[in-house]
Amino acid sequence: MTENRTADVGVARLDVDRAARTGTPEVVYAEGKTPAQTVTCLAGLLDAGAPLAWATRVSPATAAAVLERWPEAHVDPVARVARVGTVPPPVGEVLVLTAGTSDDAVAAEVAATLTASGVGCRRVDDVGVAGIHRVLAVAPDLARADAVVVVAGMDGALPSVVAGLTDRLVVAVPTSVGYGAAFDGLAALLTMLTACAPGVLVVNIDNGFGAGVAAARIARSAQR
Amino acid sequence: MTENRTADVGVARLDVDRAARTGTPEVVYAEGKTPAQTVTCLAGLLDAGAPLAWATRVSPATAAAVLERWPEAHVDPVARVARVGTVPPPVGEVLVLTAGTSDDAVAAEVAATLTASGVGCRRVDDVGVAGIHRVLAVAPDLARADAVVVVAGMDGALPSVVAGLTDRLVVAVPTSVGYGAAFDGLAALLTMLTACAPGVLVVNIDNGFGAGVAAARIARSAQR
Amino acid sequence: MTENRTADVGVARLDVDRAARTGTPEVVYAEGKTPAQTVTCLAGLLDAGAPLAWATRVSPATAAAVLERWPEAHVDPVARVARVGTVPPPVGEVLVLTAGTSDDAVAAEVAATLTASGVGCRRVDDVGVAGIHRVLAVAPDLARADAVVVVAGMDGALPSVVAGLTDRLVVAVPTSVGYGAAFDGLAALLTMLTACAPGVLVVNIDNGFGAGVAAARIARSAQR
Amino acid sequence: MTENRTADVGVARLDVDRAARTGTPEVVYAEGKTPAQTVTCLAGLLDAGAPLAWATRVSPATAAAVLERWPEAHVDPVARVARVGTVPPPVGEVLVLTAGTSDDAVAAEVAATLTASGVGCRRVDDVGVAGIHRVLAVAPDLARADAVVVVAGMDGALPSVVAGLTDRLVVAVPTSVGYGAAFDGLAALLTMLTACAPGVLVVNIDNGFGAGVAAARIARSAQR
Amino acid sequence: MTENRTADVGVARLDVDRAARTGTPEVVYAEGKTPAQTVTCLAGLLDAGAPLAWATRVSPATAAAVLERWPEAHVDPVARVARVGTVPPPVGEVLVLTAGTSDDAVAAEVAATLTASGVGCRRVDDVGVAGIHRVLAVAPDLARADAVVVVAGMDGALPSVVAGLTDRLVVAVPTSVGYGAAFDGLAALLTMLTACAPGVLVVNIDNGFGAGVAAARIARSAQR
Amino acid sequence: MTENRTADVGVARLDVDRAARTGTPEVVYAEGKTPAQTVTCLAGLLDAGAPLAWATRVSPATAAAVLERWPEAHVDPVARVARVGTVPPPVGEVLVLTAGTSDDAVAAEVAATLTASGVGCRRVDDVGVAGIHRVLAVAPDLARADAVVVVAGMDGALPSVVAGLTDRLVVAVPTSVGYGAAFDGLAALLTMLTACAPGVLVVNIDNGFGAGVAAARIARSAQR
Amino acid sequence: MTENRTADVGVARLDVDRAARTGTPEVVYAEGKTPAQTVTCLAGLLDAGAPLAWATRVSPATAAAVLERWPEAHVDPVARVARVGTVPPPVGEVLVLTAGTSDDAVAAEVAATLTASGVGCRRVDDVGVAGIHRVLAVAPDLARADAVVVVAGMDGALPSVVAGLTDRLVVAVPTSVGYGAAFDGLAALLTMLTACAPGVLVVNIDNGFGAGVAAARIARSAQR
Amino acid sequence: MTENRTADVGVARLDVDRAARTGTPEVVYAEGKTPAQTVTCLAGLLDAGAPLAWATRVSPATAAAVLERWPEAHVDPVARVARVGTVPPPVGEVLVLTAGTSDDAVAAEVAATLTASGVGCRRVDDVGVAGIHRVLAVAPDLARADAVVVVAGMDGALPSVVAGLTDRLVVAVPTSVGYGAAFDGLAALLTMLTACAPGVLVVNIDNGFGAGVAAARIARSAQR
Repeated sequence: MTENRTADVGVARLDVDRAARTGTPEVVYAEGKTPAQTVTCLAGLLDAGAPLAWATRVSPATAAAVLERWPEAHVDPVARVARVGTVPPPVGEVLVLTAGTSDDAVAAEVAATLTASGVGCRRVDDVGVAGIHRVLAVAPDLARADAVVVVAGMDGALPSVVAGLTDRLVVAVPTSVGYGAAFDGLAALLTMLTACAPGVLVVNIDNGFGAGVAAARIARSAQR
Repeated sequence: MTENRTADVGVARLDVDRAARTGTPEVVYAEGKTPAQTVTCLAGLLDAGAPLAWATRVSPATAAAVLERWPEAHVDPVARVARVGTVPPPVGEVLVLTAGTSDDAVAAEVAATLTASGVGCRRVDDVGVAGIHRVLAVAPDLARADAVVVVAGMDGALPSVVAGLTDRLVVAVPTSVGYGAAFDGLAALLTMLTACAPGVLVVNIDNGFGAGVAAARIARSAQR
Repeated sequence: MTENRTADVGVARLDVDRAARTGTPEVVYAEGKTPAQTVTCLAGLLDAGAPLAWATRVSPATAAAVLERWPEAHVDPVARVARVGTVPPPVGEVLVLTAGTSDDAVAAEVAATLTASGVGCRRVDDVGVAGIHRVLAVAPDLARADAVVVVAGMDGALPSVVAGLTDRLVVAVPTSVGYGAAFDGLAALLTMLTACAPGVLVVNIDNGFGAGVAAARIARSAQR
Repeated sequence: MTENRTADVGVARLDVDRAARTGTPEVVYAEGKTPAQTVTCLAGLLDAGAPLAWATRVSPATAAAVLERWPEAHVDPVARVARVGTVPPPVGEVLVLTAGTSDDAVAAEVAATLTASGVGCRRVDDVGVAGIHRVLAVAPDLARADAVVVVAGMDGALPSVVAGLTDRLVVAVPTSVGYGAAFDGLAALLTMLTACAPGVLVVNIDNGFGAGVAAARIARSAQR
Repeated sequence: MTENRTADVGVARLDVDRAARTGTPEVVYAEGKTPAQTVTCLAGLLDAGAPLAWATRVSPATAAAVLERWPEAHVDPVARVARVGTVPPPVGEVLVLTAGTSDDAVAAEVAATLTASGVGCRRVDDVGVAGIHRVLAVAPDLARADAVVVVAGMDGALPSVVAGLTDRLVVAVPTSVGYGAAFDGLAALLTMLTACAPGVLVVNIDNGFGAGVAAARIARSAQR
Repeated sequence: MTENRTADVGVARLDVDRAARTGTPEVVYAEGKTPAQTVTCLAGLLDAGAPLAWATRVSPATAAAVLERWPEAHVDPVARVARVGTVPPPVGEVLVLTAGTSDDAVAAEVAATLTASGVGCRRVDDVGVAGIHRVLAVAPDLARADAVVVVAGMDGALPSVVAGLTDRLVVAVPTSVGYGAAFDGLAALLTMLTACAPGVLVVNIDNGFGAGVAAARIARSAQR
Repeated sequence: MTENRTADVGVARLDVDRAARTGTPEVVYAEGKTPAQTVTCLAGLLDAGAPLAWATRVSPATAAAVLERWPEAHVDPVARVARVGTVPPPVGEVLVLTAGTSDDAVAAEVAATLTASGVGCRRVDDVGVAGIHRVLAVAPDLARADAVVVVAGMDGALPSVVAGLTDRLVVAVPTSVGYGAAFDGLAALLTMLTACAPGVLVVNIDNGFGAGVAAARIARSAQR
Repeated sequence: MTENRTADVGVARLDVDRAARTGTPEVVYAEGKTPAQTVTCLAGLLDAGAPLAWATRVSPATAAAVLERWPEAHVDPVARVARVGTVPPPVGEVLVLTAGTSDDAVAAEVAATLTASGVGCRRVDDVGVAGIHRVLAVAPDLARADAVVVVAGMDGALPSVVAGLTDRLVVAVPTSVGYGAAFDGLAALLTMLTACAPGVLVVNIDNGFGAGVAAARIARSAQR
């Protein structure tokens, strides 16, 4: 383990060799950090030689601070992702489905993560099971994908149906969409963990970043 | 309210006029009662003039005690329902679906309740969403029913799909089938409460009796 | 299933034939959508030939956007429901009870849903069980209704009492009224799921829309 | 505080003066104790001069050990209470109501506690709210009582109704009767804590002993 | 029950005879009501002949509306209680203890409720168990009280200690004071429900009103 | 969807073409089924032409029934998996790690699932983070695997550490090993869902079958 | 880290140098292991040179297997601890308090852990806060101890009181003693986590082993 | 106990001798107090002779009020701690580790508490287990410390790893950093309570004050 370097930038102890070890660099989690702290972390990663540095859960103030420091930076306000540097050319393709329009922000974080990870992304939105023909219509897309990410709130039933239609891995992302007994995403989380169809793996509620990193690993593995 | 009679049988205070008020007589909940207590309650209801007296959650010992007292009694060991007296002729038809074979006992309680309530029942089992073509195949049955009862454990996703296929009311029964994050039926319960398709109403976990009574009310109302 | 059409309006994939399949059209859930997105969805439904398009959980900003686009639209600010087009003439009658004045907004959503669904609605408010004579006084109303919707927060005890007084189906709506161990409606939800009287079916906390759709199905079925 | 004595009997450190301080002696909680330990504790209390020593949650084995040591002891197997010594003559009267027959064991613990505490007890059983006329029929009993204990499982709705009918304090005891979303008494507990009628105080699930001690304090206070 | 009157004031169905039945009039729960609705309810109660009408959970806006309508009204901004009319002369005395200064608002609601109920109140504040000598010092006050109300957040341990020092009934009020695993009062609630000393009865989290009504019933009963 | 066949064997409605659609055949979940029902389902799958039929969660009685019907069947009593027919030759390799010896049964289910799915499996056991050098020692194994399955109970911390050491996908399986605040696997489940390292995907508690199916999909995808 | 050795005994990968690193050797957690597996682990530790090897959560069968292999072994059936080898001479003293007799088994595990760790132990039992004078009487013991372990179930209130009486660290152990809202130790756990007196640190429910190891570290540190 | 004094300052009943009894004076918990109340409490403590008075959870308004009254006061806005008077010279050293930059505020409260308690503090930040080499690098710091405080949110896995590397007591502080299934610190709390390495003791979520007081007790004990 002695070969792993750490860059001490004061506010953080950056894990400089994480990209080499895991295929994904240390990505800055901007929630709970000041704009200045996020900028410092991004700069530290670039200084250490990273071709691309990025942050998730970026507030408007942090986005502004990033753009002021690096006018060429790219900010996706729906996904709340900011990045500085060169995006790698995409390999493979991950299919990202949403159950409803309200799941859009989480799906956007999945897509931004895939892009920054150098993996292709294709989105098909609003295919909830209340109109099951919309789900059945995506069968050709499923067959073409390296992996499938399904984003759903409320009852979270979509991954169970999709996993019964394909041999691709289904990464299920519960969202906090819904009220009352949805319990901020808990209902969808439990549904996905107990999916009656195997082949479903689950990430934390609203965790588009985690789903994107995982799907990217699968896609890169399939394209090797 | 003064016209409502109560029959005091020592171990219970029977609500003799409940059938007249609500369409369903007082039904004996045998769990937590001794076999003798259940027999006493059934006898009290018959003595008060009921043409049919029945009990749910009947243990083998209670079933034996009922049969000893009334050899002509009918006992369904899967549904755990015992009844003494004359079943009314069936009107209408309720469709009862299960997601899997393990949901059988709860569906049997629904069916026994419908029979005792004088409502027809048609069962189609093991149509979970992991093989969605099995669900689509029941569309003609849905169109013929006065109401639909859907029994499902694990992810509890079946009612969401069914409710998107029919204009009949869907009574959803979560079951305690599953392990881990199924939390003894809690996952299925939350899924059904947050179903993305409207037209789904929910009863307690494993409550086949409640679903049967409700579906019978709907069927009788539709047949009036 | 091939006959089901989907209207892609960019922000959503509208399930155009849902009214034909289920008796209720796709209704726009405005929470988590921008005013423009809601307007786009309503317009898409009207364009596809729907005589009436409506949305629930409408914020003041969304209500204003709807009225700007369709000055003839109808907005109910208490129920947070907006609709454009022609309401069908009412058939049957659903009785809507509330336990207290604070449950008013949820009951208003039930009523607005019934109206948009072409079903008659009669409200009797503030009949909580602490003054049980107020509940007993609604007995004549119960006998006239096709179905009963009971809206209650805090202890959620009202449906148990009402279901013991009538042979009509009782649709119970727990509300988030109350504090502390009411746990934002969880206490009322559990009470209703474990009601000691059968004939009670439950929807999600504060889900006036779901209760209205279900009650409308029952009323239409009874009037067929 | 220096006047308070402690009797060290090896397995326990008996709080000998608790009766003098609180009106109720230290009562042996037999659950988690061996029969021999419970006998030792009862003997220690009698040795220290108590006219009556008693234990709750007594298993059949412990009951047998008590009767072997003191043949004149009194054991109530339903209440699971054993006592040795002289019961004080009763003062006042507490009314104990149950919602159903299955709540019997908990009500029996209330009654046994009242008897051992020297307070009169009157029971009326099986008056659940599903047959509301049964509740209304107890109004004359309510007016005669010093306090009311209401024992109920499932939805736990009975105390809310009773408290609206009387000016007596209502001590509510949730029981673990019920299944599924009753969550072993949690549903009834939450219902009682959020009762819409004031004047309801709550004890732990199945805690007939605690309810009995509290009701005895009220009755003695009223009779002073 | 036919003698119970109801006053329909549009926004509510006032239970006019509740004071006669239960000793406490219908008290207006102002949370979730507009200022105008609360004023209407108070006026309706006074019109029906009540000598005193009051409301709890009163916001500053509602307090202002009450004072504008009745300049002679009394408003307690800490307790959030407003009242119009004549307070009955106090009988008896209830001792109200708090564990810490942060529990003040809830204790103030207890006190205001006692005052409006015509029962005397004595407060001793900030006697948490971390400095146990402060608890022991209240022993003389305990002996003089008709009942004791203990208000505590965080660990909620105070009632267990107090109940071991007195033969008076202890009404325990868990508060939402604390953070993290205090879970908004849940920790204190569970502590009080499982108090190792009998004689503790519990109300909902932050429910000073319910504790006050219950303590008033005990005090009046003791003074009869 | 019309090409999907269903085999009705009385106790179940077998999804015969699931292997063609998803790469994994319908696998019989034996929990909640009688031995005879499980045998019937396995026979039905073989009759429909499957080269291999298998069941999970097999009790000793069911294992005996399978062996009586098919003496050549293979039963793994630790994994509780029974299979009849020909196992496909393995492709690729999945690394299965356990945190402790008590996680053995779940890891055995993972391994049996991989074998039945035609994917290679390599196990390294008892490498919990309390002796972190044991984790670091598996780095060479990680680099050789197509995917990594990590099985852990109690604190469930192992996947977070492993995911920081590899670019392979980590499938995390929480187990019900532990007591108290482990809450039957809930603690480990939450830990894994909130892992500070991305690349971790989670299945239900004790769900070795689901982890095995998912890992097999990844391995086959990587070997295509 | 390369200096840390691992002993592979087939069923486990023993962390041989843990005593050198952490002061406590790897201790065998016997729950979920067969008697043979536990014996193998103990033998492996002794073979690697440990002067003392021990196991916790030992069932009677495992205890018998240990005694058969090492007749000189010491087994404490209440604490469920078995040990083979030489106990180090005790240094310092830890005071172990219990709230009630039912907490005995957990306190015994604390004591057995201290003994095996070479630290002195003094127990004072049954000093619950319902008789607060019993707590005050231990003040001299507190002053003599290097650390205090407080074991309590039900309301778990004892650590809050003790921590206000001493400058020693209080290690609080919630136990699963109690029923209903004790929720198997959850109530006591939350109480201890929210103790109003600082100086309280908490371990898992019933975790006498963890409390003993921690208290031993403190005592050894104080005696250095 | 009679020697313990109480200072009644109107808004509070200050426990003046707590420092003599427990080594830590009564510290003012400013949350839920007005700025004036906090100032009054601090003044009361100083008036009673304390060389240092301090408050935690200080809002900006309260901090300003403190500085206005005592211009020489010291305020740490990140830790939200204000103090007036003389800090004792530090003895010993506690090592404070954080898993990530977002845990900074809680770690600052630990450090401020140690300083006010007269104990030395050394911080090493951002050593989460996703880059395990950062944890291994702190081994020399661990060996020098009297105790270790580990502050972590999300999965809370860091204490398990650290406790396997040292013989010092590990005080674990779960933080509310994270979203979704982190459940405001619950996930980290459960992880720490079930840590697979012994020697971990836990405080409430975000409770830097409690961790600091406990660590100070250990350090002072080690330095005696």
